[in-house]
Amino acid sequence: MASTVNKTAHPFSKANLDDLLLKRFFYAPAFEIYGGVAGLYDYGPPGSALQANIIAEWRKHFIIEESMLELDTTIMTPEKVFVASGHVAKFADWMVKDSKTGEVLRADHLVKNVLNDRLDRDKLARNPVADPKKKAKKETPLDDALVVEYESILNRLDEYSGVQLGELIKKHAIVNPATGNDVSDPVEFNLMFASNIGPVGNNTGYLRPETAQGHFVNFQRLLEFNNGSLPFASAQVGRSFRNEISPRNGLLRVREFTMAEIEHYVDPADKSHPRFKDVADVKLRFLRKEIQSAGKNDIIETTIGDAVATGMVANETLGYFVARIFQFLTKIGVDPARLRFRQHMDNEMAHYACDCWDAEILVSSGWVECVGCADRSAFDLTQHMKATGRSLIAQKPVDPPRFIHKTEPEWNRKELGLTFKKAATSVQKAVEALPTEELEKIRAATENEPYKLTLENGDVVDVTPKFVKIVDKTIKQTVEDYTPNVIEPSFGLGRILYALLEHSYWARESDINRGVLSLPPLVAPIKVLIVPISSQEAFKPLIHEIATKLRRAGIFSRVDASSVTIGKRYSRNDELGTPFGITVDFASVANGTVTLRERDTTDQRIGKVDEVIAVVADLVEGVCTWDEACGRLPAYSGVQAVDGAAPTS
Amino acid sequence: MASTVNKTAHPFSKANLDDLLLKRFFYAPAFEIYGGVAGLYDYGPPGSALQANIIAEWRKHFIIEESMLELDTTIMTPEKVFVASGHVAKFADWMVKDSKTGEVLRADHLVKNVLNDRLDRDKLARNPVADPKKKAKKETPLDDALVVEYESILNRLDEYSGVQLGELIKKHAIVNPATGNDVSDPVEFNLMFASNIGPVGNNTGYLRPETAQGHFVNFQRLLEFNNGSLPFASAQVGRSFRNEISPRNGLLRVREFTMAEIEHYVDPADKSHPRFKDVADVKLRFLRKEIQSAGKNDIIETTIGDAVATGMVANETLGYFVARIFQFLTKIGVDPARLRFRQHMDNEMAHYACDCWDAEILVSSGWVECVGCADRSAFDLTQHMKATGRSLIAQKPVDPPRFIHKTEPEWNRKELGLTFKKAATSVQKAVEALPTEELEKIRAATENEPYKLTLENGDVVDVTPKFVKIVDKTIKQTVEDYTPNVIEPSFGLGRILYALLEHSYWARESDINRGVLSLPPLVAPIKVLIVPISSQEAFKPLIHEIATKLRRAGIFSRVDASSVTIGKRYSRNDELGTPFGITVDFASVANGTVTLRERDTTDQRIGKVDEVIAVVADLVEGVCTWDEACGRLPAYSGVQAVDGAAPTS
Repeated sequence: MASTVNKTAHPFSKANLDDLLLKRFFYAPAFEIYGGVAGLYDYGPPGSALQANIIAEWRKHFIIEESMLELDTTIMTPEKVFVASGHVAKFADWMVKDSKTGEVLRADHLVKNVLNDRLDRDKLARNPVADPKKKAKKETPLDDALVVEYESILNRLDEYSGVQLGELIKKHAIVNPATGNDVSDPVEFNLMFASNIGPVGNNTGYLRPETAQGHFVNFQRLLEFNNGSLPFASAQVGRSFRNEISPRNGLLRVREFTMAEIEHYVDPADKSHPRFKDVADVKLRFLRKEIQSAGKNDIIETTIGDAVATGMVANETLGYFVARIFQFLTKIGVDPARLRFRQHMDNEMAHYACDCWDAEILVSSGWVECVGCADRSAFDLTQHMKATGRSLIAQKPVDPPRFIHKTEPEWNRKELGLTFKKAATSVQKAVEALPTEELEKIRAATENEPYKLTLENGDVVDVTPKFVKIVDKTIKQTVEDYTPNVIEPSFGLGRILYALLEHSYWARESDINRGVLSLPPLVAPIKVLIVPISSQEAFKPLIHEIATKLRRAGIFSRVDASSVTIGKRYSRNDELGTPFGITVDFASVANGTVTLRERDTTDQRIGKVDEVIAVVADLVEGVCTWDEACGRLPAYSGVQAVDGAAPTS
Repeated sequence: MASTVNKTAHPFSKANLDDLLLKRFFYAPAFEIYGGVAGLYDYGPPGSALQANIIAEWRKHFIIEESMLELDTTIMTPEKVFVASGHVAKFADWMVKDSKTGEVLRADHLVKNVLNDRLDRDKLARNPVADPKKKAKKETPLDDALVVEYESILNRLDEYSGVQLGELIKKHAIVNPATGNDVSDPVEFNLMFASNIGPVGNNTGYLRPETAQGHFVNFQRLLEFNNGSLPFASAQVGRSFRNEISPRNGLLRVREFTMAEIEHYVDPADKSHPRFKDVADVKLRFLRKEIQSAGKNDIIETTIGDAVATGMVANETLGYFVARIFQFLTKIGVDPARLRFRQHMDNEMAHYACDCWDAEILVSSGWVECVGCADRSAFDLTQHMKATGRSLIAQKPVDPPRFIHKTEPEWNRKELGLTFKKAATSVQKAVEALPTEELEKIRAATENEPYKLTLENGDVVDVTPKFVKIVDKTIKQTVEDYTPNVIEPSFGLGRILYALLEHSYWARESDINRGVLSLPPLVAPIKVLIVPISSQEAFKPLIHEIATKLRRAGIFSRVDASSVTIGKRYSRNDELGTPFGITVDFASVANGTVTLRERDTTDQRIGKVDEVIAVVADLVEGVCTWDEACGRLPAYSGVQAVDGAAPTS
């Protein structure tokens, strides 16, 4: 619904959308009355409801549909967990300081912004008529070689270490563009918020930067809950924190955000997925890492079935989730034409991942990573196993059973004790540590030609068949241990929410200031606006009846009985993305009919209260389109049409 | 459902319940594989689902039912917000350190535990036959005067300052009971987790200890969203943090927890509530502050209507929420006989509250505060207004309009300028600051007898009617400003969840180790267990059909196809609190009938798949009782009854 409407209207105005979102309190800078805090946002009533509806659909689409095991783990995390996961060492960005003002900037962003700006000005200098307004300012073109060098730097920006970023800054005389001052050498800054747990001052805790570790540390309990069988997935929706150096771009880069993460545990030897066939025909737009490495961004459009068959996407399970992510995003209203899956280049992969595809959504500021779908391999479980000594493994049957041949010492403990007394244990230990070929030599030894065994303390003793026999054993192996691999789809809900708002926004043909959010009924904060045309007492019972019936049908409605005109009330609710309006007028009170207004077309239909509610219920549940609804309810052409775009205006 | 069953079974065993909750992963100590962190718990699949269901019902019961404005605000909060709210200064506990081990203890808890222990031993000494097992250890009774003193201290423990706690500890020779060592003087410890926002090191942030401030700082936007009219409420479900000194008691005292808070904004001059009549007849158990101050705990059982009428509960709005809290808690399964509303004593009230009633639930360790219902008056909005200079007020009509008489100076600016030149502004300012009686003197002044006016700089000048006339004005006032009061119901979801689990738990008559959680279907983590009696392929289509139909009816089910006996599978699911089981046997495959098992009674009924699903849907929605269900489905007495308690066993 969103995309088609969006395209036919006025050119997109981010300023108008931002105004609307603030005015209608979708979200606002947190602590604004205190001057705000960069990177912190509060969601107001429509933003909260939109987010809650997105989460509810996410739960249905992923958790319930696939019987995932939901978790709710703590945000506060002791340091050793993030030492093991690698976040204490590696979850950092490079920052530089303005030498005079002390302002802190992210080093890679500084380089990127300054070089991009120089390239823009170069283009202007080479083609000065492109924008006549900017002609006044004379630009000098860059050397051709420098242009190539800048472009190459920008393409590989994620590769540079802090030292290299510092060298780039010096070599290309990059200064803080806001002040013209030099900047310091890059310093590493860990992005986790630190605190102290408890009243004694040496127990560092971090606010989690992702929910994932909360899943991994509970792996053994989850496996047990799933009766020991794999594959299965855990899932969690919750708050995470990243202490960004210089957050910007509204909801796109924030310090506190809600994530929805799935950790799907799978046997590394078999990453097939039983339901892959259900999605094999889903067509997606892929941007491969090889294409990006070549400095290009050509899209390959193909089915996920093909993508897995040709090896572009590594395995069925990863592919299954990529397709399911696509289905989820488009179901809630993201425009499929502005959605692509971009593979991470080898140099940009997170320290824990071995392959990763991001669902990126195009918004006015460019492509934004909204969902990461990474194969974390066995990295995390292995790290936590090493750090704790606890077993985070699964078992699988070996079928048919495997027979393992072993050569082993068999002890005559009495003779061993008699011969070696206190040294007996050392002898036993030394023999058991020997490789098979040495054991064969013991087997061949005799009383006269004993095997010369070196103990741990350096002593050499004689080993004879008298107290140890070397025997061959066959062991039948029916199960084997393995460390599961983890496929992780990880959703940044704030980014998705913002992208969805951009894709849903447009302005009425008649007036660029009459914004509309064409949110699908599935996620719209309020489904139905009830508009009484008068505040007379006689209207109240009917309003109450409609509100109660809608509530019983599970439909969230709101009554707008404010004193402004109906046209203004409709406008306000177009801005809130409310898909349907029920108007109660004097005819309603007299004969029980109400009108039903559709937000995008401003069409109005008429019917009895119960008929209209039944149609609305079907519309909200998505089992009926507006065209079908028009077949069930006649058009309304009454006197009180008040909306600018309504048919009778 | 819970309470009656609970009482008829074995004596309650907390150890058995704790085992069950851990084994079935309702919740577990967080980071257990790393040795755990005191006061942090992770919820596993059944705990998460139970919590999600409680929250969903809370949203319906409060937010949707009363059109509250939902918010989702940040946890990370800049320091100045909590300076204004008083938390930086006052949100603290007193702690003492063991002089040798350095162990940290909460001072009030130490005094309470040691004195309670002494009183217990005193009782034993006075009545040594009470517990013959403990007879061996000889106890000396305390002086009668000391008993009275201890009891008085315990009753007023919340009153003592840190210094006073230190004096008590010295006077009564209180030591750390775990080590016998002396403890240090009490030191204040703020319970908020602190961190630093951004890369520059002087921007302290705290993790919120309640969600409330996130509502208050957004008050003006919320009011605007509500078209400027009061009363209205904002609501929020979210994580909060308290860095407890020594957390204990499982979910009852933790460092990170999920809260659900409502802030209801109301005109302080009118705290009536339009829906109070709907709840006036709800009967509740009250424990008044006067009774507690007298060292007693007698309950007054009366309707909320009476409680407000007699002034025991301060106003209708507070009373309305108290009754709604009761309705919510009992609806989700809390035993009303173990629920009371306790009024805070004046000395224990939080720094922001002017009246407070706690919903307390009785669990095995005593009465636990689970919901606070406080009248925060205008405290918070006033504080934030003072700190920011921003207007956090509402307006109300004055009807009939009020006429205000004012005596004011009216200036002849030309004359004023000619007479005083540069000093004119100072003269004007000084006159406008005068009280009415002085203005009257100016009115009476003449050219010959001018009014002697003292300016700010000390100069005295002559004021005459030539350049200022004193006039009487009448101003018509149709609206007036006021700072709303806030009534706050605040829910600790973890405590409610734990209390609910205790109230729901019992063990089958036949075996104390066969635990059952009689959770109401409304909140049960899984509503239906589907149990195939065989793993044959022939069963799969029917299992799939049942699961799909249940999902479409909005009912969360799980298939348990594990290889253990049906009896064991039922036991496991009794422990998970799953109210219904659908068994698929060979007869099902042949003729489409399935059996339906009810958890508490272990009754089994039989019917066609669609009939059984329709009955289950009505049971889960609460529109049908099990007795009524038995009228719709005949009893089952087939061959495969496998459950210990089933009728045919």
